Amino acid sequence: MSEDQRLTKRSEDFSAWYNEVVLRAELADYSPVRGCMVIRPRGYAIWELMQRALDDMLKATGHQNAYFPMLIPESFLAREAEHVEGFAPQTAVVTRAGGKELEEPLVLRPTSETIIYAMFAKWIQSYRDLPLLINQWANIVRWEKRTRLFLRTTEFLWQEGHTAHINEEEAETEARSILALYRRFMEEWMAMPVITGLKTESERFAGALRTYGCEALMQDNKALQAGTSHNLGQNFAKAFDVDYQTAAGQMDYVWNTSWGVSTRLVGALIMTHGDDKGLVLPPRLAPVQVMIVPIWKTDADRVAVLQVSHRVSEVLRESGLRVEVDDRDGMKPGAKYYQWELRGVPVRLEIGPRDVAEGQAILARRTGGKVPVKMDEISEFVNETLEMLQRSLLDSAKSRQAQNSVRDVTMDQLVELMAGKGGFAYGGFCGNAACEQRIKDETKATIRVIPDPDFQSERKPRKCVACGEAATTEAVWAKAY
Amino acid sequence: MSEDQRLTKRSEDFSAWYNEVVLRAELADYSPVRGCMVIRPRGYAIWELMQRALDDMLKATGHQNAYFPMLIPESFLAREAEHVEGFAPQTAVVTRAGGKELEEPLVLRPTSETIIYAMFAKWIQSYRDLPLLINQWANIVRWEKRTRLFLRTTEFLWQEGHTAHINEEEAETEARSILALYRRFMEEWMAMPVITGLKTESERFAGALRTYGCEALMQDNKALQAGTSHNLGQNFAKAFDVDYQTAAGQMDYVWNTSWGVSTRLVGALIMTHGDDKGLVLPPRLAPVQVMIVPIWKTDADRVAVLQVSHRVSEVLRESGLRVEVDDRDGMKPGAKYYQWELRGVPVRLEIGPRDVAEGQAILARRTGGKVPVKMDEISEFVNETLEMLQRSLLDSAKSRQAQNSVRDVTMDQLVELMAGKGGFAYGGFCGNAACEQRIKDETKATIRVIPDPDFQSERKPRKCVACGEAATTEAVWAKAY
Repeated sequence: MSEDQRLTKRSEDFSAWYNEVVLRAELADYSPVRGCMVIRPRGYAIWELMQRALDDMLKATGHQNAYFPMLIPESFLAREAEHVEGFAPQTAVVTRAGGKELEEPLVLRPTSETIIYAMFAKWIQSYRDLPLLINQWANIVRWEKRTRLFLRTTEFLWQEGHTAHINEEEAETEARSILALYRRFMEEWMAMPVITGLKTESERFAGALRTYGCEALMQDNKALQAGTSHNLGQNFAKAFDVDYQTAAGQMDYVWNTSWGVSTRLVGALIMTHGDDKGLVLPPRLAPVQVMIVPIWKTDADRVAVLQVSHRVSEVLRESGLRVEVDDRDGMKPGAKYYQWELRGVPVRLEIGPRDVAEGQAILARRTGGKVPVKMDEISEFVNETLEMLQRSLLDSAKSRQAQNSVRDVTMDQLVELMAGKGGFAYGGFCGNAACEQRIKDETKATIRVIPDPDFQSERKPRKCVACGEAATTEAVWAKAY
Repeated sequence: MSEDQRLTKRSEDFSAWYNEVVLRAELADYSPVRGCMVIRPRGYAIWELMQRALDDMLKATGHQNAYFPMLIPESFLAREAEHVEGFAPQTAVVTRAGGKELEEPLVLRPTSETIIYAMFAKWIQSYRDLPLLINQWANIVRWEKRTRLFLRTTEFLWQEGHTAHINEEEAETEARSILALYRRFMEEWMAMPVITGLKTESERFAGALRTYGCEALMQDNKALQAGTSHNLGQNFAKAFDVDYQTAAGQMDYVWNTSWGVSTRLVGALIMTHGDDKGLVLPPRLAPVQVMIVPIWKTDADRVAVLQVSHRVSEVLRESGLRVEVDDRDGMKPGAKYYQWELRGVPVRLEIGPRDVAEGQAILARRTGGKVPVKMDEISEFVNETLEMLQRSLLDSAKSRQAQNSVRDVTMDQLVELMAGKGGFAYGGFCGNAACEQRIKDETKATIRVIPDPDFQSERKPRKCVACGEAATTEAVWAKAY
C-alpha cells in the first residue's frame, strides 16, 4: 500500500480504516499462517511498554512471574466439565512429535488453568503456602473462525494470573482487586476509560464461579472486552486435587482466581484514539514520544540544524523522554510529518535555520496545534505538553463514552439504538437468561456487564428492558467485538 | 525433598547435585508433560534479569524486538535442504485444529529462520531497507530424547536474532559482533568466562555458512555451549526469495545472520558458581541481593530489631539494591541462613539486639566470611561488597578454567585427559573431518571451537593431534553437555 494513498476515513468504513492504520503504521502484518499475525517492531514496542507498566503493577501487589509448559495433555482439559466444553472446540492439537505418533495428544494452551493447577497441587501443602500469587507472560493458541489483526488472532500474547487462596472471601477480593488494577492501567496508561462489572452466566469463563470484565467503547460505538478476571471457586481445585492443611489441621480445597489481558489491547488503543490521519498514541505508551524534524535547504543550514536537533534530542532524553531525530536525506519535511502523524508520535519538533537563529523550535501536537518554544524552556515545555496530552486523551475518550451512553432504555429505544449508532445502553434486567437471549436476537447487543456501583445510574431502572417485570439489577448492553 | 536432607556434594555426583539445587532452590520443577519443565518464580526471576540486561544491550546496538507466529507450515522447513534435515526429526506437529484435520500440518517452531525470512521477503525491497536487525523473545519446541532441567528441555525460552545485510562482509561483522556481545554479557553479568570461536562443519547450524559459539567450562570439567551466532550466507535468502534492489539498480539476495541464547544459561550459571551449600548467584543476576535476617528472643527485642531491619532495608533499596527482610516467626535464624544460602543470596545481614545497641549489622558473604558493619556506612559497604563479589566470582571461574585447560596436547594426553578429569584441551588440527571423528570415537570429546585469536595459545601447535600431519589451525576439545 503506497504511503501517498489516502487513508480511508473512520466515518466511511471504520473497519477498513483500522486495518489500514495497523498495516501502514507498521504495527502488524498478515503471516502465511492462517489467522496468525506478525507483530512488527513498531507494534511490539507498544506491547513492551504495556507489559512493563502492567508487570510493575502486578509485582508491586505481590505477584511473581513463572513459566509453565505450552503443551497440555488433552485429558487435563477434560477434568473440569465446563472448561473442556468451552475450550475443546478451539484447540490446536499436536499428535506427532519426534517422528512418532504421540500416545496422548497434546493441546496448545488455550489458557493455562489446567497445567498450572496441576502444579499448584504439588506445591501447596499447608495454609502457610497460601496465598500463592502467580503470573505468566505467554503465547496462547485458540482456533478462531474469523480473525482480525490484534483483536482476534489464532495465536496471541497475553499475561495470565493464577492465584490460590484459603477461602472464598480472599479469592473474591483478589478477583476484584485485579479488575480495579486493570481499570487503573487502562485509564492511566492507555487513556482508555472502561466500565467494569460482573458478567452474566452466558458470558462467564468456562469453569468459573464469577467472571468480571472491563469493557471499553470504541469509536464505532462497539464495545471491546479489554480484560477479564475470574473467581474460579473450588472448581479447578477439586478437579486437580489442590488441597491443603488448614491452620486447624483439617484438609480443604483452595479457592482460585485467574485473569488476563492480551495483545488485543493494542487494537483497543488504536480504536480508542486513532483519527483520520492514523494512529494517535498516549505519550506514556508511545515508543517515540518526540520526533525532531530538522529542516534545511543549503549544506551550511544542514550542519547547523542537525547540530541543534541532536543537542535538543540529548537534552530531552536526559529528562527521561523517548526521542528520535529524523535526519533522513532526500525526503521533504512534509512527507516526514505525514509519516510520523500516521505512526502516532505525540509531539513533533520542527527545527529550521530561522528557528536556530531565533533560539527556538516549533512544537506540533499530534492532536493539533503548533507553538514556538524557546530553547531554554524546551525540556520543561515538552514534558508538560506530553502530560497534558495524556490527560486530554483520557478526557476526550471519557466524554465520547458519556455522549454515547444512554440511561434507562426501553426495548424500543434499545432496538433503535443498536440498529443505528450503537453505544452503551443502560437498562433494567430481571436476571432471566431468556430476556438476555431475546434482546440479543432482536438487537445483536449483549449484556457487557452488570456494572460496578461506581458505574451504575444514579437512579436504578425499575423494570426489565425485555419483559417489563421488576428489575433485579441494572445491565449495560452493547454490540461487541 | 526435605530441606533438612543434606545436599549431595559436587564431588560425589555432580549431576545429582545439579538436580537437587534446581529443585530445592525452587528454580524449576518437572511437569506432567514429557521433557517440559516449569520455571518457578525464583528461577524465572533470574531469567528476567538476564533478559533485561541482554535486551538493553541488543537495543543499544540497533536491534528491534518483534514477534512471529509459533506455527510454521511444514513445507517451509523443507525449502532449505540442510535446515530440514537438521530439524525435521525434532519437530512437534499440529495435525488437528478446531476439530478438523489440517490440510497442511503446522510445525511448532524449532527455530524461526523460515517464518521470519518469509516475512523479510515481503518487507525488504531496496538497499534502503537494509540492514534489518530483528530480535524475538519466544518459546521453542524441540523433541529431545534426553532432557535435563534448564540444560535441554522439549520446550525452552530464548531470544533469536535475525538480520539481513547487503553483503557478506556486513553479515560476517554482525555475526561476530553478536558473539562478542554474548561474551561480554556472560562475563559482565553471569561472571562466566567463555572461549569464543568458529564451529567445525560437523557442529555447524543446519543451513548456515559459518557458526560461531561461546563455550563455558562447568565445574565437572564438561563444556557447555552457551550461545551461538550464525552467518547464514544467502542460503535462506535464496530459499525464501529475499531479494532487493541495490544502489546500482540491480537485484541481489540479502545476506542473513541468526543467533540465540536460551534458558539453558540459567543451568550454566548454576554449574559455574554453585557450591556444596547450593546456588551461588552473581549479584547482578540475583533477584534478591541482600537478605536481612532479624534475630530476637523477647517481644521487646522483636520490635526493636524489626524496626531497624526494615529501616536498613529501605536505605539499601534506595541505593538501588534488591533487598528483603526475612521476618518469619517460628523459624530459627540458622534455618533461615541455610535456606538463603541454598538459594544463592549473595549477602546476608544479621541484626540482633546487641547489633541494634551497637549500631551495627553482621554482614555474611555467600562465598564465606562475616564482618560487622557500622550502620552509617552500611549502604556504601554493602554496595562495595556486592561489586567485589561480582568480580571475584568471575576471577574464580577464570582461574578454574585456566587450571583446567591444557595446551598443545598429544593424542595420548587427550585420551587420558578425557578418560579422567576432563577440561579444555588445546591442540593442533589438520582440518580433516576424519580426524575430528576419530578423536570423538576414541575420547568422546568434540571440537568445541576453533578459538578466536584472543583465546589461542601463544605458540600455535604444529601438528594435528590425530594424524600428526601439519596443523592448519588450533582447536579446543572437550566433552560437552
